[in-house]
Amino acid sequence: MGEDDVVPAPDEAAGTRTPLHRRVADALRAEVDDRTTPAGALLPSEAALTDRFGVSRSVVRQALAALEAEGRVRRERGRGSVVVDRSDHRRLVTRAGGLHDQLAAEGAAVSTRVLELSVEETPEVAAWLGTAQVLRLERVRSVDGRPVARIRTYLPLPLMAGLRREALADASLHAVMDDLVGSRPRRGSRQVRAVAADEGLAAQLGVAAGDPLLLLEGRGAAEDGTPLEVFATWHRGDAVSFDVEVDDVRARPLAPVGLTGGRGTPPSPAVAENPGRATTGDGEVDVHRLLADLDDVRTRLRALVSRRP
Amino acid sequence: MGEDDVVPAPDEAAGTRTPLHRRVADALRAEVDDRTTPAGALLPSEAALTDRFGVSRSVVRQALAALEAEGRVRRERGRGSVVVDRSDHRRLVTRAGGLHDQLAAEGAAVSTRVLELSVEETPEVAAWLGTAQVLRLERVRSVDGRPVARIRTYLPLPLMAGLRREALADASLHAVMDDLVGSRPRRGSRQVRAVAADEGLAAQLGVAAGDPLLLLEGRGAAEDGTPLEVFATWHRGDAVSFDVEVDDVRARPLAPVGLTGGRGTPPSPAVAENPGRATTGDGEVDVHRLLADLDDVRTRLRALVSRRP
Repeated sequence: MGEDDVVPAPDEAAGTRTPLHRRVADALRAEVDDRTTPAGALLPSEAALTDRFGVSRSVVRQALAALEAEGRVRRERGRGSVVVDRSDHRRLVTRAGGLHDQLAAEGAAVSTRVLELSVEETPEVAAWLGTAQVLRLERVRSVDGRPVARIRTYLPLPLMAGLRREALADASLHAVMDDLVGSRPRRGSRQVRAVAADEGLAAQLGVAAGDPLLLLEGRGAAEDGTPLEVFATWHRGDAVSFDVEVDDVRARPLAPVGLTGGRGTPPSPAVAENPGRATTGDGEVDVHRLLADLDDVRTRLRALVSRRP
Repeated sequence: MGEDDVVPAPDEAAGTRTPLHRRVADALRAEVDDRTTPAGALLPSEAALTDRFGVSRSVVRQALAALEAEGRVRRERGRGSVVVDRSDHRRLVTRAGGLHDQLAAEGAAVSTRVLELSVEETPEVAAWLGTAQVLRLERVRSVDGRPVARIRTYLPLPLMAGLRREALADASLHAVMDDLVGSRPRRGSRQVRAVAADEGLAAQLGVAAGDPLLLLEGRGAAEDGTPLEVFATWHRGDAVSFDVEVDDVRARPLAPVGLTGGRGTPPSPAVAENPGRATTGDGEVDVHRLLADLDDVRTRLRALVSRRP
């Protein structure tokens, strides 16, 4: 039996056989795709892979050639197989801007197909939107002709009653909202999850059922607090990643900071006496935290101004 | 043939058969798990499911009973099957705080197992850490005895040379860092991806290979900019979600704003003449954006102060 002959994989159903080189390629591919072997890293040497999988070197070479043909690794003379940084679309989720604008800003050709726009009574979203009836909008967004995101949006009625399906094709919903009602989402909360595609999402996104999707769910309100949308967007896991800005200012421990002084100024009596929490239309706010933020911004600003030519 | 008899599924390999009620349950489970049918939503009625799947009502009932037994839906008299909001662990990724502290703040019993602590030369991370050699730390974090995250961290040497494996068991790495070098990560960038678990991650996290994982990759630096860590954390997709704060302030279009006035004050000449960008140790900074941030913080602060009793 030659070293490339197919042998039964012990964990497969009886009757199916997977060639050895494919099993090696599958294992390495899974480690590249979940980034345990990250972009820029070297795969183990052929000798090390031969040991690990208990296969011949030519089987390892076949597996590496497959990964190279897929664009996952690059063979470098004298170094070995380097994992390629396959550029994906990056979305900054700490900004209220919509997916359309963020993708378009990359210079990509963004297109949007409307699957459905219908009136619904959906109690779990209507309550937050403050209306009995909502518009349900279902869309698929593609970049350079490839579907990357499946978007479901609930919009309040009657506010958005003027929304037309034609206006949404290949457009930014937020821009359309701006035209329609004079405002767009500026604030809100968002949650991120990793989920496995069901059959329906898989078909719409051109992936296999079970493939990982990056789900962004959220609510968006206008600057004055008017609820504008509840959305869920499923992004292809292999095409989109999210960037997150870490807010080191807010992460600092809270300390009372004077209103007018710089860092280190003793707190003014008004601040020292304050219980530290105030109530606004948005709920309770930590005044000390806000003061600390202000102080930090002022300090950074002074540092910048003093460096300006 | 009774309605519950097994029939061959057309998309399965010859020789395998899946009972009808299981196929219906699988389809509905996938839609609940990827949140196309979100928590709080009603599943379609038994009659609607009978139509959709082309099966008898008793097959639908068997499938719904399975989902109920799994805790995915709750049957409500007169309403139908409501999707249960299965509480998972939420992580606020816009704060520099580590996973340990965020989970512990939930009141959960957090435990950490160190798999490996070794010295390495890993060029792709060493460059950013600014050292030739790094410590590579591999850990599994569990909540209430269930593994939820697999953490890989690279730490700079010699700065972290005093790190001991024993100090890390069931501990927060950031707290240990604080003890060891007097600082912890306060700033940095992070990326989020959805990936499929390879065999190794699957075994460590107690999931099946291919299951979706929520990957958080990032770099952390001390407040003074000293690089402290490069990390990748794979979270079980069914156990952890990320919360993201949307920063509506920065999302606003930039406009020159006066240093001392409130909103609407004309820009001072110094600001109007400024090209709008300055260079600091952290790279280029947009001064207009910073001024707008400051102005916004001041405006919010004034509003709060005026409402205080």
